Amino acid sequence: MEYFLSDRVQTLKPSAIREIFKYAADPTVISLSAGNPDPNAFPVNEIAEISNDILTNRPIDALQYSITEGYAPLRETLKAYMKNRHNIGRDFDDLVVTSGAQQVMDLATKSLVNEGDTIICEAPSFIGSLNSFRAYKARLCGIPLESDGMNLKALENALKAEKNVRFIYTISNFQNPSGVTTSLEKRHAIYELAKKYGVLILEDNPYGDLRVSGDDVPSIKSFDNDGIVIYAGSFSKVLSPGMRIGWFVAPSEVASKMIVCKQGSDVHTNAWAQIVANEFMTKYDFDAHLERLRSIYREKICFTQKLLDKYIAPEITYNKIDGGLFIWCRLPDEIDMTTFCSEAVKRKVCVVPGNAFLTDEKEQCHSFRINFSTPTNEQLEKGIKILGDLAREMLNGK
Amino acid sequence: MEYFLSDRVQTLKPSAIREIFKYAADPTVISLSAGNPDPNAFPVNEIAEISNDILTNRPIDALQYSITEGYAPLRETLKAYMKNRHNIGRDFDDLVVTSGAQQVMDLATKSLVNEGDTIICEAPSFIGSLNSFRAYKARLCGIPLESDGMNLKALENALKAEKNVRFIYTISNFQNPSGVTTSLEKRHAIYELAKKYGVLILEDNPYGDLRVSGDDVPSIKSFDNDGIVIYAGSFSKVLSPGMRIGWFVAPSEVASKMIVCKQGSDVHTNAWAQIVANEFMTKYDFDAHLERLRSIYREKICFTQKLLDKYIAPEITYNKIDGGLFIWCRLPDEIDMTTFCSEAVKRKVCVVPGNAFLTDEKEQCHSFRINFSTPTNEQLEKGIKILGDLAREMLNGK
Repeated sequence: MEYFLSDRVQTLKPSAIREIFKYAADPTVISLSAGNPDPNAFPVNEIAEISNDILTNRPIDALQYSITEGYAPLRETLKAYMKNRHNIGRDFDDLVVTSGAQQVMDLATKSLVNEGDTIICEAPSFIGSLNSFRAYKARLCGIPLESDGMNLKALENALKAEKNVRFIYTISNFQNPSGVTTSLEKRHAIYELAKKYGVLILEDNPYGDLRVSGDDVPSIKSFDNDGIVIYAGSFSKVLSPGMRIGWFVAPSEVASKMIVCKQGSDVHTNAWAQIVANEFMTKYDFDAHLERLRSIYREKICFTQKLLDKYIAPEITYNKIDGGLFIWCRLPDEIDMTTFCSEAVKRKVCVVPGNAFLTDEKEQCHSFRINFSTPTNEQLEKGIKILGDLAREMLNGK
Repeated sequence: MEYFLSDRVQTLKPSAIREIFKYAADPTVISLSAGNPDPNAFPVNEIAEISNDILTNRPIDALQYSITEGYAPLRETLKAYMKNRHNIGRDFDDLVVTSGAQQVMDLATKSLVNEGDTIICEAPSFIGSLNSFRAYKARLCGIPLESDGMNLKALENALKAEKNVRFIYTISNFQNPSGVTTSLEKRHAIYELAKKYGVLILEDNPYGDLRVSGDDVPSIKSFDNDGIVIYAGSFSKVLSPGMRIGWFVAPSEVASKMIVCKQGSDVHTNAWAQIVANEFMTKYDFDAHLERLRSIYREKICFTQKLLDKYIAPEITYNKIDGGLFIWCRLPDEIDMTTFCSEAVKRKVCVVPGNAFLTDEKEQCHSFRINFSTPTNEQLEKGIKILGDLAREMLNGK
């Protein structure tokens, strides 16, 4: 039978990253392509302890139907945490638990964007979010990302030129894939531009708590007194991605529509995971846990950057990072990026081709993304050395 | 700020059932409006045991990112179970784990239905699915449900008259809300009609394993040699709804698009829940567990039907059921259903107004739905007596 497929999915392809995972599943391949937290970063004993307590003493809470908005005590805990720690949340806002932050992208698009409407994104940006937007036939408009955030001139031009812009999507801290943190000045400027042009901002902050150097920069949502920012948070990098729990803070009117959409998407988020997250935040030392994560990643980032300086510089350049899980590397103009990534796979090293993160994958791109949180130190050293050797060979025309 | 909302959500309302839950949360109210499994139906000790084992011996499997298609061993277990037990799954099919069966409705609509395309539904039908369909601006066409399934003449007329019909949605066993089981003859007839008109079938079977009397009827998917049926299964009624795990079996070409949509929706389903489900199915006696559930519900159905005969007949009539969680009750023509349901709430009994299950909620409806799995026996007796007294008072014009 020839199947009729909706216009939405006609051009949707599986994420390039997920496709690369197929190579990465080969145990002889060193994968620098994933985005998994370091396995040592999970509070395994605490989760086991909490889970055992819940399933012994109040199993029905974890096993029965729950409500769409999320487990009430977790919502209260997160509201207080966001307010006290990040100055996020005003009287007009609501906080809702989601099935990972990915679901925030899905629900925001479903609620706010008609087919053909425009979403402004950083270029490059996180492929998972871009695919969420594409699945609703949104038009994506990429704004070049500089070392301190989006190019403001290009952003304003886009706001002027594009019709029906529904929101500006930004990952403000340690952006995926570029590692860029948007400066405070640019955050304010982006906020003011959004306000001027009557457009919302979707601020995605999965890595904010993983800063390993420098000072925290206030999130855009923290100065949202006008109700124009939807903030997406996630437990994936600070507790467990397998649990699939994220949340959003958004003006109640927008939140109420996102909740109705969530009813139709998955009814509610896994109840056990929500209770575990709440117990972990309230009965254990969440701050000490975050500090432990930062020290794990601080060490790993330092180690990786040394390897990059030793093995791939100066042929391949990269942006130093203050946190997050990814480093963005740039090949010299003479090297074709796609060829480089394919050759690397033949030598058993997987990286993600940079064009996967562009709004138009056919655009020229000389960069690729590496991750350092999943591989071991030995794999990192071996893999990065192979990448450097390959670049030099390609430059020398071998 | 005045928010722009997508056309999709302009008319979407929170599910009437979820709204009724607000009354039902009042502890002095007897709720016959939920659809929660009986709390005694959860294999609490087994789940605690399995969970403890996983989190002690291989925590990273449960906590790390997993793949979109689902935990591989669970997919294999379900494939074998569906094949051996239900003759479901051909070489052209694939099986994918989802975040509850609700997500199957969402992904199927996202992948197969353009805005304005038609989905044919039973009338009445499950409100959660109708809202999933509505969220993609599908046009809903309801086919009157008879005691043995859809009216075939009306179905064929709709297939002839409606443009761009993408699928026929049916809950073939113990339908929600009507309790109707579609006969084998009608299942074959629906299949042949779908084939004749080149339309898919979405067969939703959350209650199939909860048959308490009569013989099992083969599912439509079991005779799908043409690749035209998407089958949705669920652990919500046989293991735990709070875990949010369902699955679908669909032709691979359709499944591959639904998988890409799932990547953008929630990346993957909670990993812990998937492993728990797999261990429960493979290391424990799943059949004995189902038998235990059936005996719990058999007793409860028998008890409830006796109460209905005693307290509400003959004024209110109802369809006897062979399984599932719901009984559909019909008021005499003289009683206005909406007034009846509101009066019942004032007397502290919640039922779901029947029009909530119609494709057009403004249509006349004389029925309401009750659930017997959530309330205690005492609540059932008290609640049903109140309903019967109310009906008689309204008839006598008091």
